[in-house]
Amino acid sequence: MRLPIRAVTPETESAEIVGWVHEVRDLGGLSFFLIRDRTGIIQVTIPKKKVPAEILDTARSVSRESVVRVRGTVKAIEKAPGGREIVPEELEIISTAESPLPLDVAEKVSAEMDTRLDSRFLDARKPRVRAIFFIRSAVTCAATAFLASRGCINIATPKIVAAATEGGTELFPIAYFEKEAFMNQSPQLYKQMMMAAGFEAVFEIGPIFRAEEHNTVRHLNEATSLDVEVSFADHNDVMELLEDLIVHVYDHVAKDCSEHLAELEIDLKVPSKPFPRIPYAEAIEIANKTIEEKLAFGDDLSPAAERAIGDTVGQHYFIVDWPTDIRPYYAMPYPDRPEFCKAFDLMHPRMELSSGAQRIHDHDLLVERISAKGLSPESFEFYLKPFRYGMPPHAGWGLGIERLVMTMLDLPNIREAVLFPRDRHRLMP
Amino acid sequence: MRLPIRAVTPETESAEIVGWVHEVRDLGGLSFFLIRDRTGIIQVTIPKKKVPAEILDTARSVSRESVVRVRGTVKAIEKAPGGREIVPEELEIISTAESPLPLDVAEKVSAEMDTRLDSRFLDARKPRVRAIFFIRSAVTCAATAFLASRGCINIATPKIVAAATEGGTELFPIAYFEKEAFMNQSPQLYKQMMMAAGFEAVFEIGPIFRAEEHNTVRHLNEATSLDVEVSFADHNDVMELLEDLIVHVYDHVAKDCSEHLAELEIDLKVPSKPFPRIPYAEAIEIANKTIEEKLAFGDDLSPAAERAIGDTVGQHYFIVDWPTDIRPYYAMPYPDRPEFCKAFDLMHPRMELSSGAQRIHDHDLLVERISAKGLSPESFEFYLKPFRYGMPPHAGWGLGIERLVMTMLDLPNIREAVLFPRDRHRLMP
Repeated sequence: MRLPIRAVTPETESAEIVGWVHEVRDLGGLSFFLIRDRTGIIQVTIPKKKVPAEILDTARSVSRESVVRVRGTVKAIEKAPGGREIVPEELEIISTAESPLPLDVAEKVSAEMDTRLDSRFLDARKPRVRAIFFIRSAVTCAATAFLASRGCINIATPKIVAAATEGGTELFPIAYFEKEAFMNQSPQLYKQMMMAAGFEAVFEIGPIFRAEEHNTVRHLNEATSLDVEVSFADHNDVMELLEDLIVHVYDHVAKDCSEHLAELEIDLKVPSKPFPRIPYAEAIEIANKTIEEKLAFGDDLSPAAERAIGDTVGQHYFIVDWPTDIRPYYAMPYPDRPEFCKAFDLMHPRMELSSGAQRIHDHDLLVERISAKGLSPESFEFYLKPFRYGMPPHAGWGLGIERLVMTMLDLPNIREAVLFPRDRHRLMP
Repeated sequence: MRLPIRAVTPETESAEIVGWVHEVRDLGGLSFFLIRDRTGIIQVTIPKKKVPAEILDTARSVSRESVVRVRGTVKAIEKAPGGREIVPEELEIISTAESPLPLDVAEKVSAEMDTRLDSRFLDARKPRVRAIFFIRSAVTCAATAFLASRGCINIATPKIVAAATEGGTELFPIAYFEKEAFMNQSPQLYKQMMMAAGFEAVFEIGPIFRAEEHNTVRHLNEATSLDVEVSFADHNDVMELLEDLIVHVYDHVAKDCSEHLAELEIDLKVPSKPFPRIPYAEAIEIANKTIEEKLAFGDDLSPAAERAIGDTVGQHYFIVDWPTDIRPYYAMPYPDRPEFCKAFDLMHPRMELSSGAQRIHDHDLLVERISAKGLSPESFEFYLKPFRYGMPPHAGWGLGIERLVMTMLDLPNIREAVLFPRDRHRLMP
C-alpha cells in the first residue's frame, strides 16, 4: 500500500511511495533522489555498494520528473527534508519523462508566464503553484458549504443564451444549430428569474464569458463567478452575507490550508467584520487627494483610484450609494434620491472583487431604466415577463473567484489563479 | 421579522409572513387565502365583519400569485394545512401578478412541457417542481463535500477550447476574436492533464456542451457533468469511489430532503454496495433474452437493451470489460486481451448514468489508439505532450447530474431536472 509522502515520518519503519523525481544528485558512492507527491517531498538515498544491481541500473536510467515507485526502509536523518529518508529495496519507473524538460519544475530557473502556461501541466507540479490551486479548491468548497448552510439553493443556469445581459457588447457568438446564440456573460437575469420562481435564495459557481479586448493582469475572457441572489432582502442584507462569506472563507483557508500558505510564504490575516461602507462621493474624494487624473462625480473608478482608496482604507471595504447612471439598469434607485442607487462594490485594497445591488422588482420602473440605458425592452421580454407575475423584492451580487484567490494570495497576475487561462491571445492548452 | 411559513405552528401566537397567493376563496362572510413560500403553505382567514376596512379592500384586490406580506394572530384550526391559520392585522401587496396567469401554479390544470418551460419561473413555483431543484441542490452540495472529504481537488477547466475531445463531431463553434474555437464537450482531456500535473485526485461540476441532433427525453445540448479523475488508481478503484458517491448522495437526500421527497411522493431507497459488475458480453446475453432487435458482440447498448438488463438486475450496476473498439481512444486495453478494455458504465435500471475507465498513460499506445480511431494525433498535441513527461497511471469517470436526479426522482423527462433546458429547438428563456 502506497503511503502519501507526508505520512512517512522519522518513526516509520518501512514505506512504499509513488511520485515524481524532483531532483537527482550523485555523490560518488551515494545517489540521492528527491521524490515528490502532492503531499510533500522525501529523499531516497542509494548507497551504491549496498543495493542490488537492478536498483542501481534503474536509478542510473531515471530522468527528472519521471514517475517512480519506491519501497524501502525509512531512516531518521536530520539533514534530509522532513528528517527522514528511504533506502530502497524496490525501485520501479512507472512513467518516463523525456529530457530536457520544457520547464524547470524545481524552480531553479524562473520562467515567463507564457512559457509556464504553455506547459501548465509541468508548471502546476511546482509546490508553490499547486498550493494556489489547492487553496482555490478549499475556497470554492468552503463557499459551497457556507452558502448551503445559509439556505441558498445551488442552481445551474444556462451558459448558452439567446440574449445579452447588458446589451450586445462583449459577447462571444455561437452557432447553435441554425440559430445564433451567445455564451453567457453573467447568470444575472437567470438568478433574478429564480427569485420570481420563489426559490428565495440561490447561488451558482460557474463560468462566465466576456469578449473584452482588455489584455491585462486582472482580466480574463473566461472566468469563474460566484453568484448569489436573495429575495425579501435589500443591499444591506446581501452585503452582510457577502462579508460573512469572505470572512468564513479566509478563516477556513487559514485553518485548513496552513501547509499551502506556508509554501506560498503567506501569513493570512482573516479580515474583520464589518467592512467599512464608503459612499461613492466620499470614495472619489479620497482618491482625488492622491491621484494625478482627478475623478469627477459620475466617473467610474480607475485602477489608480482603486489603489489610492485601498491604500487609505487598508482592508476590505464596500463602496455604496453609486450614481444610478453608471450602474446597470437593474440596480434599484433610492426612492427619495433616484440619482443614487442601492448598488455596491466589494473592494480589496488592490481591486474590485464583487458587484451587487438591491434590484428593481417593479416591472414598469425596470422597463424605464432599460430604455434610459439605450437598450430595447423588447429584446428583454423573456426577462421582463416574470416581473409581471409576482416578482418579490430581491438583492444579490457576483464575486470573481479568481480575483478572490488572487488578492487572498497576493498574486501579481490573475492568470496565476486559473489553470488554463483564456485571454485575448490564449486559447491553448 | 418575517417567519418562514414552516416555522408557524399551531402554538405560534402571532406571525409575520411573506409569500405568493397560492389560492383565493370567498365563502360569504369569510375570505380564505393560501399563502405559499418556499417552506410551505399557510391559510389566511379574513372574517369580513371583524377586520379593518383597508384589509378587506386589499384582500378584494389581490390576485393569485401576487406577493404579499401578512402579519396577524395565529390560531390552531384542524382543517387548515399544517393545523393553523393566520387572521391578519396587516395585509400588504408587495408585488402584483397580472391575470390571467400564463400557467396554473396550483396545478389544477396540467400543462405541456413546452408551455411549462416557456414560463419556467411560474412552473418552478409549484411545490413539486421546486422539490426537484432543491433536491438537485442537495445532490451537488453533498457530492462536493463528499469528494473534498476523499481528497479530491475542485478544479475549473476551460469551456472555450481549440480542439474537440473525441473528434470533430457534435461541437458548437464559437467566434473567439479572430480565431475559431468550440464549447467543450467534456473536461476529459483537461482533467487528465491535471493528473500529469500531479494533482492526483480532482473533480469538477460544470457545464458540458454537445451539438447532438437527438431530441429525446434523455438528451440535452447543455448538461451538467460531475467529472472525477484519480492517479495511481485503476478502473476498480474509481468504480468503488463512484459507488460510494452514489450511496452517499442517496443517503444524504433520504435524510435531508424528506419534505421534498414527500412532496414528490417518493420513498427513496438507498442503493446498497457493492453494485453488481456485469461483463459486457454477459450484458448483451441478458438483453438478447428479451429484446426484439438482438445485439451482436461489438454493438453499443440500445435503450431497449438497457431497459431489458435493468429489469433483470433491478438495481444500480456496472457494465465492465467493454470491447476496446466501441470505447474512446483513451480507455486502457487489458494487456493480456487488448480487444477488451478497462472501461465501465454505471447503469441505473432505466439508463446509463456514468462512463469511466482506467486511461492509457503510455504516450505511444495513446497515439496508436488515436490513429486507430481515424483521428489525427497532430491535432491532440497539447494533450499528448503531458504524456511524454511523467504521466502517472490514472482512472476516472463522468457522471451526468441531470440523469442522476432524473433516475433518483423517477422523472419521465430529463428536462424536469434542469431549470432552463437547451435542446435542439429551445434556446429560451
